[in-house]
Amino acid sequence: MDLRLISKLLGIISALIGATMVFSIPWAIPALGKRDGVPGLDKVEWHDLTAMLISMLICFLLGLLLIWLGRNNGGQLFRKEAMAVVGLSWVLATFLGALPFWISATQRDEGTPMSLVDCLFESQSGFSTTGATVISELEDPHLVSHCILFWRSSTHFLGGLGIVVLFVAILGQGSAGKALMRTEMPGPSKEGTQTRMQHTAWVFAGIYCGLTLLLTLILCGLDMTLFDALCHSFGTMATGGFSTYNKSIAQFGSGLIEYTIICFMLLAGTNFALLYAVLRRRPGKLLADIEWRTYMTVILVVGALVVILGLVHNDFDSLPHESFSSRLAHAVRFGLFQVVSIVTTTGYVTRDFDGWNSFARGILLLLMFVGGCAGSTGGGMKVIRHILFLKIVRLETEHAFHPSVVRPLKLGGRAVDDPDLRHNILVYCGLVSVIFVSSWIVVVAIEPDTTWGTTPQHKLIDTASAVAATLNNIGPGLGTVGATQNYGHFSAPTKMLFTLLMMAGRVELFVILVLFSPRFWRNH
Amino acid sequence: MDLRLISKLLGIISALIGATMVFSIPWAIPALGKRDGVPGLDKVEWHDLTAMLISMLICFLLGLLLIWLGRNNGGQLFRKEAMAVVGLSWVLATFLGALPFWISATQRDEGTPMSLVDCLFESQSGFSTTGATVISELEDPHLVSHCILFWRSSTHFLGGLGIVVLFVAILGQGSAGKALMRTEMPGPSKEGTQTRMQHTAWVFAGIYCGLTLLLTLILCGLDMTLFDALCHSFGTMATGGFSTYNKSIAQFGSGLIEYTIICFMLLAGTNFALLYAVLRRRPGKLLADIEWRTYMTVILVVGALVVILGLVHNDFDSLPHESFSSRLAHAVRFGLFQVVSIVTTTGYVTRDFDGWNSFARGILLLLMFVGGCAGSTGGGMKVIRHILFLKIVRLETEHAFHPSVVRPLKLGGRAVDDPDLRHNILVYCGLVSVIFVSSWIVVVAIEPDTTWGTTPQHKLIDTASAVAATLNNIGPGLGTVGATQNYGHFSAPTKMLFTLLMMAGRVELFVILVLFSPRFWRNH
Repeated sequence: MDLRLISKLLGIISALIGATMVFSIPWAIPALGKRDGVPGLDKVEWHDLTAMLISMLICFLLGLLLIWLGRNNGGQLFRKEAMAVVGLSWVLATFLGALPFWISATQRDEGTPMSLVDCLFESQSGFSTTGATVISELEDPHLVSHCILFWRSSTHFLGGLGIVVLFVAILGQGSAGKALMRTEMPGPSKEGTQTRMQHTAWVFAGIYCGLTLLLTLILCGLDMTLFDALCHSFGTMATGGFSTYNKSIAQFGSGLIEYTIICFMLLAGTNFALLYAVLRRRPGKLLADIEWRTYMTVILVVGALVVILGLVHNDFDSLPHESFSSRLAHAVRFGLFQVVSIVTTTGYVTRDFDGWNSFARGILLLLMFVGGCAGSTGGGMKVIRHILFLKIVRLETEHAFHPSVVRPLKLGGRAVDDPDLRHNILVYCGLVSVIFVSSWIVVVAIEPDTTWGTTPQHKLIDTASAVAATLNNIGPGLGTVGATQNYGHFSAPTKMLFTLLMMAGRVELFVILVLFSPRFWRNH
Repeated sequence: MDLRLISKLLGIISALIGATMVFSIPWAIPALGKRDGVPGLDKVEWHDLTAMLISMLICFLLGLLLIWLGRNNGGQLFRKEAMAVVGLSWVLATFLGALPFWISATQRDEGTPMSLVDCLFESQSGFSTTGATVISELEDPHLVSHCILFWRSSTHFLGGLGIVVLFVAILGQGSAGKALMRTEMPGPSKEGTQTRMQHTAWVFAGIYCGLTLLLTLILCGLDMTLFDALCHSFGTMATGGFSTYNKSIAQFGSGLIEYTIICFMLLAGTNFALLYAVLRRRPGKLLADIEWRTYMTVILVVGALVVILGLVHNDFDSLPHESFSSRLAHAVRFGLFQVVSIVTTTGYVTRDFDGWNSFARGILLLLMFVGGCAGSTGGGMKVIRHILFLKIVRLETEHAFHPSVVRPLKLGGRAVDDPDLRHNILVYCGLVSVIFVSSWIVVVAIEPDTTWGTTPQHKLIDTASAVAATLNNIGPGLGTVGATQNYGHFSAPTKMLFTLLMMAGRVELFVILVLFSPRFWRNH
């Protein structure tokens, strides 16, 4: 294992994180950041400004140190090194990203400051583009300044960028990248060479930044401040979900903003290779893609069910005198937003879906496991895995009574020949189940029943939704982690577990799991 | 497909069911069956007696007809025929078993008679040894007579016998049997020839009947009436769970009876091949068996956790002045019983575990998926599949970062070489997840939220437990299907779905799934 090369790459990432912190600093300036218009920097803003500056310094120094340690490296990145870099860079980012929160918290004398575990949770939630939060009050400038809020949203942007770049450019080097890409992106770009992959990484990063910029401009046009527009663009395009308001997107109460965000969430959950094809004027590729078609079908079918059942149960609080068309418009607006937000693993909220009918809550819980398309910033298990999983199970059921018939696994008419693929998909789904179930029972065991007060029966489903929402990088769940709630009430060990789940879910399990395997670090 | 042979075998099964009905008839005689000692046959008993007699007649006539239709058969049972016989015999048994309930219900003018769907549910619950019931009042002789109660428990006995005989003797014929046996029973008897398998079937049936008789005698010795002793022996040895009392085993309030039933549930959940080895004075085989050791370890570890956390939460309603040893004795008695009852998929109850702490309820829900050992009358996924599943997932995770290393799958020190085995286990677990999740969301969609009154939040977990409890042939679940509740409140479509789940769970999914596949019935 070439530890020097790993060190160098981690150093670059550390410096990159430090560089991103620079952009949070201007928001401490009253003219840009103040919500209540008090002139001058008040105590909270001074604290947060110094916290950002100190964090930035640490990132740069650590970056230089790691790059210095990593001089004279072999220059060749193999599969194991690639996995180590990806895994360790998420761990490193979590700690560095937590610095501003933590340094700021240590200076506080007001309210309940965040603990170290809270800071790590919030940082990981940002980088993994989960959007789960432990901060219950975002709008009080005496508790949290714009400077810190901007950093919080910046971690989404970096996390989203990391997904589209790290996975393509860094993992694309050596044999490792190709193997991973093959599972990650069955589609047009899978046969790429190394140069082609690095090119792809640049294109993906370009699309990602371009769409973020475009959304920012549109949101500014829809009467958002530049600050809110940037933060919500970051949250949308990274499929993150951090907002700058306690009520999330519901704060704006604007159908136009909501539909705009729906469109961009859909784009963020689409395979970027397909978006690239559209940019190159080949939209046919998008429409012909089996994964994208399934993704859209799931959204439309489930959206329709949620809207219809929501109307039947009057979940959207229509007034008795409202006309049917007005009720329907409301239902579509809120129902579709929530379905898209969950499927793409964004986690923005325009309505407290915890009060909806059981079917709606149940199907939203299931949708958490769907995730976006492969090659997008969406988390979760990805649509393609579900398609392959169902196909494999169907083929094998047939095989059980007719052992002589062996059919090829087909995807969009073409046979998928990789002999390991069937196996890998099944193992991945198995691993998700094992992690989900074991984390759930651990959380149930260590959280006290008293958190749920007089309704301890809710604990089982609420904790299940919390595990699903962190493992799949969604954000909000049901009940005590619902749309209007947050993760603050969990105990420190549970928060650490959730932090691990967010990380494992983000980098597709294996990369994090192997970091814990002593055998992985042995040289042979 | 040799339909004549299938017809003949189904005819034999029909006649066998008719023959079993004979044994229910004596319990209509007041001296044997009456609970309140009113002399002579009252109206309900006359109804039930005629219902039993008519049902018996139908079974015999149908049996003769099918055997007559099936004359001149080819005599060769291949894989497809074997699967068809097993699948169809469960369907046939469900309908024939429902006859006494249904004919009796049509004659009723008091109370709410059972609908046809209720009757099918109750019959399938008996044959599949699930023990879920839609009858809320078992003890009122004006509503349900001993004659019908005995038939209800007899379906458990027949179902349990069916599992140990059908799977070994009928499936054991031809190439089909060996293939299924290999998955079903990785262990001593897997290499058996046809003669050996038929011998095994007789031995298994002997052990099953012997243990049932032994338990009946012991229970009679512990002051149960012959009627109760027989019914509860049937329920225990078949890992069924039908009782003759609303309070299930709690009715007797006897620690001796409870510990006796614990022991026999443990035996019923053990691979019968291992019990045979013990009978042949080779107990070492039992102790060396990896599946049995895991099964016992799971029971002891989870049992200990339930006891300890139950004591902490005072789930067993100890009185303040009670000594610690008395509290502990209570906790062990109730905690262990419930864990054994769920793991072996029996479903008997001595305590309303729905009031226990969340961890206990959560872990009991998970235990539903464990099931007994392969080659036992226990349902569920079976311990061996979990062992193999976890081993496979661990091996494959290692394989992900070290593709050149291919390790053999080992079980108890010996390599398991079957190349299809890894695949089959993963597909089976996948299929269970797919069926569980899709059935759950269907039940959530079709059941009205109003069933849960002011606490619709409970619906998601209660329905999940109901699906788990029927698919894995347990019986009771959580909340509205909890220890003191029943399945009566579900709508007819849901009850039909549960009936299918019980059947599919019992015959290990594939056999029922292929019956619905048109391709299966085509000749080629």
